[in-house]
Amino acid sequence: MILILKPNIDDKTREFQRLEKHLSNFQNIEIRVHKVQGAEQVLTEVYLIGNTAALSLEEMKSFPGVDHAVRVSEEYRILGRHKDDHRPNHFTYQGVKFSQDNLNVFAGLCAVDSPASVEKMMKALKENGQVCTRMGAYKPRTSPYSFQGSGKNCLPYVFELAGKYGIKVIAMEITHESHLDEIRAALEETGNPTGVMLQIGTRNTQNFELLKIVGRQQEFPVLLKRGFGITLDESLHAAEYLASEGNQKVVFGLRGMKTNIGDPHRNMVDFAHIPVVKRLTRMPVCIDPSHSVGGRHRSSDNILDIMHVTAQGVIAGANMVLVDFHPDPSLALVDGPQALRLNELPLFLEDVRVAREAYEKRLALFSKQENTVAVS
Amino acid sequence: MILILKPNIDDKTREFQRLEKHLSNFQNIEIRVHKVQGAEQVLTEVYLIGNTAALSLEEMKSFPGVDHAVRVSEEYRILGRHKDDHRPNHFTYQGVKFSQDNLNVFAGLCAVDSPASVEKMMKALKENGQVCTRMGAYKPRTSPYSFQGSGKNCLPYVFELAGKYGIKVIAMEITHESHLDEIRAALEETGNPTGVMLQIGTRNTQNFELLKIVGRQQEFPVLLKRGFGITLDESLHAAEYLASEGNQKVVFGLRGMKTNIGDPHRNMVDFAHIPVVKRLTRMPVCIDPSHSVGGRHRSSDNILDIMHVTAQGVIAGANMVLVDFHPDPSLALVDGPQALRLNELPLFLEDVRVAREAYEKRLALFSKQENTVAVS
Amino acid sequence: MILILKPNIDDKTREFQRLEKHLSNFQNIEIRVHKVQGAEQVLTEVYLIGNTAALSLEEMKSFPGVDHAVRVSEEYRILGRHKDDHRPNHFTYQGVKFSQDNLNVFAGLCAVDSPASVEKMMKALKENGQVCTRMGAYKPRTSPYSFQGSGKNCLPYVFELAGKYGIKVIAMEITHESHLDEIRAALEETGNPTGVMLQIGTRNTQNFELLKIVGRQQEFPVLLKRGFGITLDESLHAAEYLASEGNQKVVFGLRGMKTNIGDPHRNMVDFAHIPVVKRLTRMPVCIDPSHSVGGRHRSSDNILDIMHVTAQGVIAGANMVLVDFHPDPSLALVDGPQALRLNELPLFLEDVRVAREAYEKRLALFSKQENTVAVS
Amino acid sequence: MILILKPNIDDKTREFQRLEKHLSNFQNIEIRVHKVQGAEQVLTEVYLIGNTAALSLEEMKSFPGVDHAVRVSEEYRILGRHKDDHRPNHFTYQGVKFSQDNLNVFAGLCAVDSPASVEKMMKALKENGQVCTRMGAYKPRTSPYSFQGSGKNCLPYVFELAGKYGIKVIAMEITHESHLDEIRAALEETGNPTGVMLQIGTRNTQNFELLKIVGRQQEFPVLLKRGFGITLDESLHAAEYLASEGNQKVVFGLRGMKTNIGDPHRNMVDFAHIPVVKRLTRMPVCIDPSHSVGGRHRSSDNILDIMHVTAQGVIAGANMVLVDFHPDPSLALVDGPQALRLNELPLFLEDVRVAREAYEKRLALFSKQENTVAVS
Repeated sequence: MILILKPNIDDKTREFQRLEKHLSNFQNIEIRVHKVQGAEQVLTEVYLIGNTAALSLEEMKSFPGVDHAVRVSEEYRILGRHKDDHRPNHFTYQGVKFSQDNLNVFAGLCAVDSPASVEKMMKALKENGQVCTRMGAYKPRTSPYSFQGSGKNCLPYVFELAGKYGIKVIAMEITHESHLDEIRAALEETGNPTGVMLQIGTRNTQNFELLKIVGRQQEFPVLLKRGFGITLDESLHAAEYLASEGNQKVVFGLRGMKTNIGDPHRNMVDFAHIPVVKRLTRMPVCIDPSHSVGGRHRSSDNILDIMHVTAQGVIAGANMVLVDFHPDPSLALVDGPQALRLNELPLFLEDVRVAREAYEKRLALFSKQENTVAVS
Repeated sequence: MILILKPNIDDKTREFQRLEKHLSNFQNIEIRVHKVQGAEQVLTEVYLIGNTAALSLEEMKSFPGVDHAVRVSEEYRILGRHKDDHRPNHFTYQGVKFSQDNLNVFAGLCAVDSPASVEKMMKALKENGQVCTRMGAYKPRTSPYSFQGSGKNCLPYVFELAGKYGIKVIAMEITHESHLDEIRAALEETGNPTGVMLQIGTRNTQNFELLKIVGRQQEFPVLLKRGFGITLDESLHAAEYLASEGNQKVVFGLRGMKTNIGDPHRNMVDFAHIPVVKRLTRMPVCIDPSHSVGGRHRSSDNILDIMHVTAQGVIAGANMVLVDFHPDPSLALVDGPQALRLNELPLFLEDVRVAREAYEKRLALFSKQENTVAVS
Repeated sequence: MILILKPNIDDKTREFQRLEKHLSNFQNIEIRVHKVQGAEQVLTEVYLIGNTAALSLEEMKSFPGVDHAVRVSEEYRILGRHKDDHRPNHFTYQGVKFSQDNLNVFAGLCAVDSPASVEKMMKALKENGQVCTRMGAYKPRTSPYSFQGSGKNCLPYVFELAGKYGIKVIAMEITHESHLDEIRAALEETGNPTGVMLQIGTRNTQNFELLKIVGRQQEFPVLLKRGFGITLDESLHAAEYLASEGNQKVVFGLRGMKTNIGDPHRNMVDFAHIPVVKRLTRMPVCIDPSHSVGGRHRSSDNILDIMHVTAQGVIAGANMVLVDFHPDPSLALVDGPQALRLNELPLFLEDVRVAREAYEKRLALFSKQENTVAVS
Repeated sequence: MILILKPNIDDKTREFQRLEKHLSNFQNIEIRVHKVQGAEQVLTEVYLIGNTAALSLEEMKSFPGVDHAVRVSEEYRILGRHKDDHRPNHFTYQGVKFSQDNLNVFAGLCAVDSPASVEKMMKALKENGQVCTRMGAYKPRTSPYSFQGSGKNCLPYVFELAGKYGIKVIAMEITHESHLDEIRAALEETGNPTGVMLQIGTRNTQNFELLKIVGRQQEFPVLLKRGFGITLDESLHAAEYLASEGNQKVVFGLRGMKTNIGDPHRNMVDFAHIPVVKRLTRMPVCIDPSHSVGGRHRSSDNILDIMHVTAQGVIAGANMVLVDFHPDPSLALVDGPQALRLNELPLFLEDVRVAREAYEKRLALFSKQENTVAVS
């Protein structure tokens, strides 16, 4: 059971102490307090764990200081949606809102290779009105003999250039807790010119120790990619590792499943799961068309497959798009063949706009019909 | 190699005989003649099989009577797209055009159960301006102890009701060659009030004997569903069995892949393959959102998953939508839980319209950009 | 519910008529009579279908003429194992016993190409004491442009050579009902020198119409291969299509699953399912190491992978082995690379013998322990 | 290219310096020195990385101090098998030999729960002549709300009891580098009564940072489990992360693939890949029948599926078996349903012995035939 306290109530108030005392009458009820940083205020959530069946929802709601109470099912306790659950499906970071109701595009470099590439990319983003990007510094690679990313050395110039071009949030994969420290240090060193969304990749979706460590900090939001060989359910459980340690600023990323039935695409595109994740949880959903498709194939209608699947994601309500661009794909050190070119950025953004507009029309259509269509 | 003859030239003309004589000089070249019924005329295509590397494309083109010539690669010879291949990507049946460039919706019953259900469905289609439908008479079922479909007995009333409500084409699955005879007989008996698109289901995608038999007739077009456990490549090869026997009026159907990574959907939705099929072949592409999703789950945005994946298919250029409706899903004998209700038909069609409009905007966008974007 | 009648009782006897009369008192009970040809006698089985919950098992057992009665669960009614089910797990054809308790090897040609190859193969089998073989006349191929098998033309010489070399049973794939007629005709024409086990391949596992037709005859036993993209449960249901039409002489074949997680093998070897099939059904289980592995890879211990997986199947209780050999694999028209050579036949058979001996030792071990180990 | 130096030569000798000087003439050749601890001596291997095509194998072999030289392909450089590669396929730890040629059984607890359980297990092992075991202290679990293992607190008593009962090696999963420190500390604290083989589980197969850290120490050997959703090739590359950092004492573990085509088993058993791993690499191969099968199903022959798949692994040359036992499975905190009981241990070991004996007979059979059978 989760009790959401009133805005001005926290675990140091008298109301909380009365609540605590009452709960001590019940055996096997453990209390965990989480502070949730909203756009304007900090809310206190009290998680009651254990034999909560013995508690009355009505009674808990009636306690002074309790704003509302939610009885959670076993699955996805914190990030999930439960009956009569009005907890938010959004958070704000660096002034950018991440929500199940809006859309942010993160175009950028799969792997940072040089200050020149980074600057060209940032400049193009600014020219196109973008404030978010992706920049890969730490690259997990199948073979130990492949390029492993530029690592911490590139961080200062990446952050400075981001600041120079007005980029507010950089999605950046980390594969070890030390990377978190390196990022924090580089941000401080450069005067915090930008923000970072920590990305946990598909190879580490069930690296629970990393999730716990990242979950224990609330400074950076987290983009958790789905595991490419596990069920959706298992990946959603992995997100709970972040939340159960305290960090609820989590975006869930779809990036395709590893199976040859997706051939000739690099992975089997799984964007039909967007509505599923939004139904089961309160997380905004990101799509990664570049890694799903993995190539610059173009159909008979002259549209790249990467753009087709992006449109598919957006028209079904995706909230974030992570996409690889490169000033010169032939020089990219990682995944060059799937990168879009800088001169394709305006077209890509316009294409996304068309698909988002269609989604919003659909939304209006279904909201209008609400009263006439029987809900299942 | 394929030689497409000029409109007034066929295998009985003198030009053809000269061609034949010339080819007899080469060893191991076999000739097969196909007549392709277009909207306005019959074209003759001459397939040269065997050691065609010895032939000069330029020389073959220069023969009197030859309109153009295409050197085909080994894969998907007839239905595939080859270099400098300008063969059509469309056909017309019963006045309805099936093309890689347009869109037809086939809403209807997964399984015919009673004249009353059929009439309600047909009536609703007419009221919503539809001229196509799906009607399942022969149902392949996992267990022999499940309902196996109404069979030939329902055909007369299905066809008559179709005629009564102006339905021009019914997509209908067959699982044995005898069903083809039964359909032909019932159409004749009822005075050909409508047309039939023969559907080969996912369990029979590699039932090559059935494909050959269906491929030998050109009366009915064929909708070939993708095999749910084989690669896309293998399913496209299966379509060639139809074409190599003479029937090129083939629509290729995506209906989801069988794997638990698609959970909680019934199948793993595979509509990202739409642009792939259109790039590799000249077949219009159909999507089957009902069997892909398999349930009436609704997301937090109040939109059914079935409608979300339909929109995903349409915005990426799908040419045909096969979708299950039922006047009373609780009474449906097969797949009731995934059926949409008749009062949802206008909403569904409007949702499809929004997605198609978005696809057309995207098409215009990319066609405009053609000159500025480097083609891969 | 299934009533197994006493040996001398059938549906023409008075006892049966009394039974029938009694059952007519119950609504919604349908009766189907099956004759099961055992090694020494014909048994009559009466299937009661419908609302059998209303019947008392004890009462049905007490009817004169009824030997025993089995209440079947919904799944795998006829071929499955049910509580207190003592129906046989074996049948005899052409003097060869097919059982869950013994082992038969079917070494032979994947595809018949010439009388010379067939004769060399048959001769080698005789020299090695074998009385069964596999001979592919009808070959389902991914592409219509590949060799489709020698077809009916090869049947007479295949059957005659089989007779000449004492081969009693040939496993032969059919893909259409007409092949059944062609086989029957060729056997008659050549004086029935051998027998045929009809094989339904993985592409036709859910070709239910073919299964029904093959199930309606009891002359030939059937080897049903597992579908390579469906669940085990679905393939076992497919076997019921054969049995529900009357043919219970069914062997179930494991041949690997189609997925790239089996790489570098052609398919993902699935022989761990041998004990599962034997637990759930009464069918003998066949393994096909050639199509599972698909190549002549040899490990660091000098043993071919094909032989390793054969040993794996046999030590877990496989009852039949289907394996490709060829006198000259480089000349084979289909799947040459995976064929074993004739001079490897003695080694292969000896390897199988070692594995079977180990299985029998294991069987003795577990039978001895029965009383001391708690059964789950 | 790898140069294996003569036993008494290392990177501090004059011979090495001459070699180094010679190589400095070539551009883009990097040198890495690895010390490999064999049973009796330390060998020095010199890895030449970069443009080694410019080097002559013959010339490198002729250098004083060089014992032999191997030109490695790109794949699996260190742990792989290459042409004319005679590097060892074994290592010894705590007096126990791990080799592609022998077999060790690691029966034990999936998850340590109490000193009593551990002692009962250890005692039973000793009584059955076993010197290895598995003991899970750190358990990665799908949900953060499940039991996460006893952690470091159980280590002292686990190690002491191991010492008391003569256990030499404990396979123990770690999921974070800190666990390595905790294990080292607990071993020291308890006076090193036993040894530990670090196990990296399937969720961390591509947790490259953990692999690198574990690869940097050579104190403990490593059991790397295959990733359950990636290709075999990708998992073998992951093993190279260990070796490229210096640790070549690596055993590779097969534990089943995650896909519903393995149903009703928990995972799709993949032991047909044993000969593949032994052909491609020099690693001993471990099988984990408990996690592959995931339940105590028993077939109609009275043998448990877990025992069937164990026999399948062993008869194909498996070198290590990891298997779950528990004194009282109903009390087990993790995976109780799949645990064998202590009174089944003698039977299990005898069953393994029968299968191993069969493998050895097969080995003799194929070694004898070597000269008469053409090698592919």
